[in-house]
This record gives sequence, C-alpha cells and structure tokens, in this order.
Amino acid sequence: MNGADALIETLIDNEVTACFANPGTSEMQFVSALDRQPKMRPVLCLFEGVATGAADGYGRIAGKPACTLLHLGPGYGNGLANLHNARRAFTPIVNVIGDHATYHRQYDAPLASDIAAIAGANSVWVKSAESPDDVGALAAEAVGASYGPPGGSASLILPADCAWSPASARGPKAVRRPKATVAGDTVDAAARMIRAAVKPVILLGTTACGEAALAAAGRIAATGVRVITDGFIARLPRGAGRFAPDRMQYFAEAALADLAGVDLMVMVESRPPVAFFAYPDRPSLLVPEGCETFALAAREEDGVAALAALAHALGAPAAPHVQALSLPGAAPTGALTPASAGLSIARHLPEGAIVSDDSVTSGGGAASATRTGRPHDWLGLTGGAIGQGIPVAVGAAVAAAGRKVVSLNGDGAAMYTAQGIWTLAREQLDVTVVIFANHSYRILGIELGRTGAGNPGPAASSLLSLSEPAINWVSYAKGLGVPGVRCETAEAFDTAFARSMAEPGPKLIEAVVP
Amino acid sequence: MNGADALIETLIDNEVTACFANPGTSEMQFVSALDRQPKMRPVLCLFEGVATGAADGYGRIAGKPACTLLHLGPGYGNGLANLHNARRAFTPIVNVIGDHATYHRQYDAPLASDIAAIAGANSVWVKSAESPDDVGALAAEAVGASYGPPGGSASLILPADCAWSPASARGPKAVRRPKATVAGDTVDAAARMIRAAVKPVILLGTTACGEAALAAAGRIAATGVRVITDGFIARLPRGAGRFAPDRMQYFAEAALADLAGVDLMVMVESRPPVAFFAYPDRPSLLVPEGCETFALAAREEDGVAALAALAHALGAPAAPHVQALSLPGAAPTGALTPASAGLSIARHLPEGAIVSDDSVTSGGGAASATRTGRPHDWLGLTGGAIGQGIPVAVGAAVAAAGRKVVSLNGDGAAMYTAQGIWTLAREQLDVTVVIFANHSYRILGIELGRTGAGNPGPAASSLLSLSEPAINWVSYAKGLGVPGVRCETAEAFDTAFARSMAEPGPKLIEAVVP
Repeated sequence: MNGADALIETLIDNEVTACFANPGTSEMQFVSALDRQPKMRPVLCLFEGVATGAADGYGRIAGKPACTLLHLGPGYGNGLANLHNARRAFTPIVNVIGDHATYHRQYDAPLASDIAAIAGANSVWVKSAESPDDVGALAAEAVGASYGPPGGSASLILPADCAWSPASARGPKAVRRPKATVAGDTVDAAARMIRAAVKPVILLGTTACGEAALAAAGRIAATGVRVITDGFIARLPRGAGRFAPDRMQYFAEAALADLAGVDLMVMVESRPPVAFFAYPDRPSLLVPEGCETFALAAREEDGVAALAALAHALGAPAAPHVQALSLPGAAPTGALTPASAGLSIARHLPEGAIVSDDSVTSGGGAASATRTGRPHDWLGLTGGAIGQGIPVAVGAAVAAAGRKVVSLNGDGAAMYTAQGIWTLAREQLDVTVVIFANHSYRILGIELGRTGAGNPGPAASSLLSLSEPAINWVSYAKGLGVPGVRCETAEAFDTAFARSMAEPGPKLIEAVVP
Repeated sequence: MNGADALIETLIDNEVTACFANPGTSEMQFVSALDRQPKMRPVLCLFEGVATGAADGYGRIAGKPACTLLHLGPGYGNGLANLHNARRAFTPIVNVIGDHATYHRQYDAPLASDIAAIAGANSVWVKSAESPDDVGALAAEAVGASYGPPGGSASLILPADCAWSPASARGPKAVRRPKATVAGDTVDAAARMIRAAVKPVILLGTTACGEAALAAAGRIAATGVRVITDGFIARLPRGAGRFAPDRMQYFAEAALADLAGVDLMVMVESRPPVAFFAYPDRPSLLVPEGCETFALAAREEDGVAALAALAHALGAPAAPHVQALSLPGAAPTGALTPASAGLSIARHLPEGAIVSDDSVTSGGGAASATRTGRPHDWLGLTGGAIGQGIPVAVGAAVAAAGRKVVSLNGDGAAMYTAQGIWTLAREQLDVTVVIFANHSYRILGIELGRTGAGNPGPAASSLLSLSEPAINWVSYAKGLGVPGVRCETAEAFDTAFARSMAEPGPKLIEAVVP
C-alpha cells in the first residue's frame, strides 16, 4: 500500500465514493490507485471548474462529499470559482490537490506555487501531507472537516512522493462534529418575541431548507407567520405537497418593499440579509428600519430541531402548510420567452427531478411556474459565480441515478464551464441542458444603470453583448458529443422539452429568447 | 471624473491601451468609462482564463502591459492559471479586480472573498483602493510594479464605490525601476571561468532571450561555448538569420545526458535548472555532478548587457553565429503525424509569424522543423498550466496587427480555454488554431509510467483518454463562429495550413494525429 492507496482506502471507508478528476503528472499515483479500488467512481472532467462544480452538485444531492482530483495551484485555481459557490452552499467536498514531491518544492519548478494560500480563501480546512504515513489520517480529517458544521470544502495537498512511497496504514473513520443544540430558552424567547411582534418573519438560511426544516417551517407558517428563505439556496425541495417559503428579493429596494412593516426577523442558520451588490445611495443591509433581528440558530447549530421546537412552542398544527399540485394548462404558444419556457418546464418536469439553476435573468419563468409543480429539488447559484449550472448538473446526476436532471443556463454563464457537456456524453448522464440564448449578459445591462453608470455607449455595449458572432449551441454541443435542438417558438420548446423529459440521456436545448 | 475615469486615464497615460475583459456588476463603472476614453481597446472574453492569457500574450509581444478586467475573487480565480503562466514568463500585466463597495465588504455578501489572498500567489503587487482619490496613484504604481524587473502581474483591487465616486485627479506617470547593471568584475570572473572550463555552457533564462540577448549569445557561441535556454521561454525569436540556442531537455535523465561532462554553467537571468516534475529515484536538480554554477546576472539584473560585455571579454567576433534559412522540401505525404504536420507548418509559416505553443507532446515536430524556418517568435508554456495556447494567441494578435499568429494546441489543453475561439471571431483576429487531436492526455500516459505507477488499468485509462466521445472540433469551432477543417492526412493538412496562412482571419484546423 502506498500513500495514494491509503488515501483512496480511507476515503472509501468514509463513504467518499465519487472522484471528479482532472489529473496531471503529480496525480498519476492517485489515478493508478483507482485501478485497485473499484468502489471509487472516477469521472473525468475536461476542466477543473467542471470537476469542482460537479463535486458541489454531488454533495448537495448525496449529502456526503465527493472528492476532486486537481493539479497543483493552477488546477485548484481553475476550480476556484465553483468552490466559492460551494463555500456559500456549505457543501462537503474533499479536494485532493497534487503537489510536487516534498523534496522537490525547494527548487521552485515551473508549476510550483503557494497552494495553501490559493486554496485558503474557499476552504474550511487546508493541510498538506509531509510523509506517506500522514495521508490516511489527514484524509479522514479532511472528510470530517468537510462536514463542518456547517460544511465546506476541505483541501488536502498531496505531494507526489507522499503518494508513491509505501504507507503504513489507511486512516481512521472520520470524526463528525455534531450540530450544537439550540437551548430551550432561546426557542422560548423566539416564540415570545414572535407572539409580541406585529409582523414577524422567519428567515431560513441555505442549510435550513431541507425537507424536515420546511415541514417545521410550514407548521409555523400555518399559524400565520411568514417564512422566507435567503436569496440563493443550495438545495430547495419544491413543488406539490411541500411548504413553499417566499424568497428574499434580489434587488435591495424590492427586498425592503417586500419586508415593509416587518418588526421582527428570526434567523435560522442565516445572518441579517444583505444586498447582492452595493449601489450608490441604496442600502446594503436588507433589514427594515426598526426591525429587530433574533438568531434562533447559528449555522453551526441545529436549526431544524429548533424550528420544530418553535412550532411546538407556538402551538402550531401538526401538519405543515403545503401546496397542492397546480400545473399550467395548455402548452404555451407563440413567441418563446423565459416565461413561456417556464410554463413548458413546469408542464413536463417529472416528479423527483433536480433543477440546476444558473440562468440569471432568464430562469425566473421556470422558478415561478414550477413552484406548484411535481415535487423536485432546485439547486441555486449560492455564491454568484456564474458557470455552475452544467457542472452542478453533472454531479447531481452522478449522485442521483434514476432522477432526471435539468440544467438551466444563461448563455453567458454556460460559456464558463461548457466543457461539462462532454462529461455528460462520456458518462451518458440523464441531464437536459437548457441554454437561454439571449445573446447578452442581460443582468449587466440592468446593473449598469443601477450602479449609476448611465446608458451604455458603443464600448460598454460591446462588453455586454454575446452577439457578433451569435453562438450556435447545437453545433457546439455536437462537437462535445451531445445532441441538441434549437427552439425559436414556444411550441417548439414545449415539444423539445417534453421529448427530453421522456427520453433518458444527455440533451441540449438552445432556447432563443429575447 | 470618477474613480473609474481616473483609472483608465492613468492607464492610457502610461501606454496601457488594451483591456481584456470579462466584467460583472461591480465593474460596470469601468465598463461605462471605456465609452469616454476611446484610446483603450476593450476586448470581450467569455471566460477570465481567456482574458488573463490574452493579457499574457499581449504583454509578451507588445513589451508593455495590457489590463484585465475581472469580477471579484471568483473572476480572478478563473484567470489564475494563465496568470501563473504569466508569472513564470515575467509578463507585465495590470489586473483590475472589481470588488464590493468598501462599506459593503463588512456584510460578507455572496460574492465576497479574500481577493488579496487569492491573488497574492501569482502577483508581484496587490493593493486595494480604499477611496476614489487612491485610484489614479495606485494605477500608476501597478503599471510600474508590473514592469518589475523582472516583471509580472500587478493586481489592483477596485471597490465599486471607489469607481463610481468623484476622483480628484488621474495618477502620475509610472515609475519604472531599471534593471541593475552587472558589475564588470562579475563579467570578468565569468570570462575567466569560461576560459578555464573544459566544457562550459551558458544558460539563458526566459527574460534573457530577446533579439539583443540572442545576438550577444550568438557571438559567444561563435567562440565555441555552448548556449542553451531554459525549457520554456516566454518569447523566443527563432528562424533564419538568428542564433538558435539549444533548449534544456524536458525529462531529467535526458537533460543530464545532454549536459554530461559540463563543468561550468553560467546563468543569465536564470537559476540552476530543475526537473519539471520529480520522479522516484531521479534527480530534481539538473546540474551535472561536479559542475560549478555561476550567476552572471540575476533576473533583476541586465543580463543582456552582461552578455554583450562577456562576448567582448571573450574576444568574440562582432557577428553572432546565426543559421541560414532551410525549409523542408516537398510537401509531406501519407499519414498525418506531429512530425509531418511540423514540416507543413515550417513550409508555410510566413516571416514575422507568432507561434503560441500549448501543444505538449504534439508540438515537437513543428518546433524542430521551424528552427531554420522564416523568422518568427515562439511563445512557450512557461508555467506548465495548460490552456494557454488559444488565449495567448488572442492577445498576441491584438498586440501585433499584420502578423500571422498560429496557435498550436493539444486537444486536452485546448479544451481548458477554448472560449477564446469566440473572441477570435468577434475581433476577426488573424489567428490559425491548430488542434492536435490525439484524443488523449498523451503526456500523462508517458508520465504515469515514469512516476512508478506502472501500466494503466481500466480506471486509470479512462482518466487519460479523451475519446468516448471524440471531440468534433470543426463543429465546436463553428458553434463559436470560426470556420474549421478536419485533416486526416499529411496532404490535407499541408493544403489546409497553406491556405490558412494565405488568407487572413480566424481559422481552425483539427489535425487528427496518432
């Protein structure tokens, strides 16, 4: 057994069974060790941003970490943006970052860089093995650290000699730190404050949006208390039979209008809400003036149990407030728009589907129309770094065989990590990629004015436009081995989307929208 | 004038006139200010790795920095790998990294992260503006820092409010620190040691490979002293009429065999050579046993003048040792291989061409065949982070209108940053992209065995293979607006490459090679 074997065996012992990889020379021992441990599923990604986003999607669905295999500092850098998103999703991930042999580091070879510094900003844990006998123990530590609470990516730097040299033993079982229990007094205080408030709201953070949390929140909502979630949720169970909380509005003024009159905000694994960006003369903090905030549970605490206790303290009914199935009636007709596409998506999205959303301005139609659709999970863009939609879909599909995955993407966002389309073909994953082709960074056209920059002239316009040339997504996807279809009418999209829901395997739909 | 104007005006005053951009909301004021300053050329890239690689290519050719426009920490992260390569090339670059407004940072909004930490590892200078009045002065400081010596990327963090608020003044002229002069005693010592040595070599670092350095080195070579360069050179003038130094071999044992008997290594803006990777039981340091090393010039020093002085001290002839034009005769026929493709490239590469090389195992044929070709510049993969070939070509073409640019790429490498193909179409750049499609990470198949990992089994093989599905590069490029052709024979490649050299504008050639 060498260090690479010790690593993989320890990961397997700790139920880490998927590896999203883009290896290089320094990772060859890890790659070779995969042949000796068939329980680890290797998935090749042609760019590290796909690998890290896939690990994020996998972790959101599986509730346990996948590992990534990355090539030194530049490899981690290529995967950094989607690890930023994973940090904001609190997704457990174990990054294995190959490095030069320990004795080779001193020479500052071309690929050398300060990996720990690069990885630090988005990792909950960073350590490097210094000997092959470290590797097993560190792997277990990394798995434990990735679970948090509240969870995140743990980065294990693996020098090449620590991988290729003999190792004495695999590592132990990972130690998982439990979430701290919220004191009964805190729950009682929240209940008292809610009873005393004129217009209380409960704000659910991304880690307090699972099935159990929504069930408890839905019971509280049945007493008349409004429940909202943070703006971007890692995994939100939605659709018929579930409680549907509202969502924090994206723009500051809309958020504050929505919260007008609120005098109490009870936060569950969240923090006082803030604007996604600052704008001149607009507030950053989205808490109405005079509104008290109260932390029922921090992110390290068990907000779900606290919500259930709060429901009890408020004398909430046993059954949560849930919504009935309500699907759009007839197929939409005429012009294809984000709204009409959303109706088609709601009509045909099957029960148990997973939606990976990176559609920025174009996804609102689908989000709205599917709210009362068949039960599904919605994976949001937690960190705001576009280029998540296809990679997260890759990982979700690996984690959830048998469930249909739909990846909704703005065209600008999709271009970041569209290499993931190849992995869909390689693994024959059951993913339908929708590209909303409006040929622009539409959100930036909106934001330009909001930041006080006025109307774009020719130079600015050129930087917001994806036309000249327009991307031919069908040709692009064909190049990567996935069949595609371009839709320019609502009817065509409805037919194409229905067909892709009925047939297994990867598909791409280019939805030409205004 | 706001902070964004102060920034752009200061950049223009300091001859920074190209901006490779992938902006987001926090950069909208910079984007808007571009409309007020037409001397800055904005070039949209659909991924930050293209923008940073383009800035590297631009800097290598123009000899001055371009700026990049990047969106917070994740945007920088997406561009990190090519900035790693630029660090190893010592290319001057000014990164403008948008950030949240200063007062917004405290709220830890979704896109917030520790930008300085992420950027630090690959920057020669990182500072953040804290007020709009900082911006001009910091911009000048960044330009100055980017020149070094020896040069690198300077990262200026620009909070949104520092961009949108009124600024009092643009910044000053950048202060450029000159290279330190090498003492005459040092030159004399080198000359004495060379005369006394049995088998001396001179090793040129990447910053000591310009026209003047090669002319001086060629004079020394005419005295019988062997001159070699580091393995990967940022910009190497090559071809007829120039001195052609040898190159450090890639593999350690080959390098040491090549250097057998060498008893003196005089380093010019370089360091003792090291292996690209460590391997079990193979040396890291590529200096033969018993060989003395002597630093004629450090990277911060003027190695070119020192080389000229050394030539004089050695009594070298005034004219350098140069090579005559020698082109392959007939067009190659039969199977298309890296070697036959190289012959075609040498046959048709026009004078003044620029080659951006990210072709890993497949480019050797072209490198060898063009050595005595028409004069051209060769831009190497300095940092070993693949995904440089297309982006660097974008930047080189922007810097050098009127010169043909050829981008040589392994298929695995090209997939990293192939979004650059779109920018070729958008800007109608005169670039021919050659993809050597061997459908594998060929280098890794070689490296796997060298790291002692044995022969790949099914799992390992799947991670080294780019087949299943094979990428259709012609379809892929068509999707991004660039016409392509697939070549499967030497004749077809010769015809296609000749045609693409004769016609202006972007082209892609998929060269199917074993």
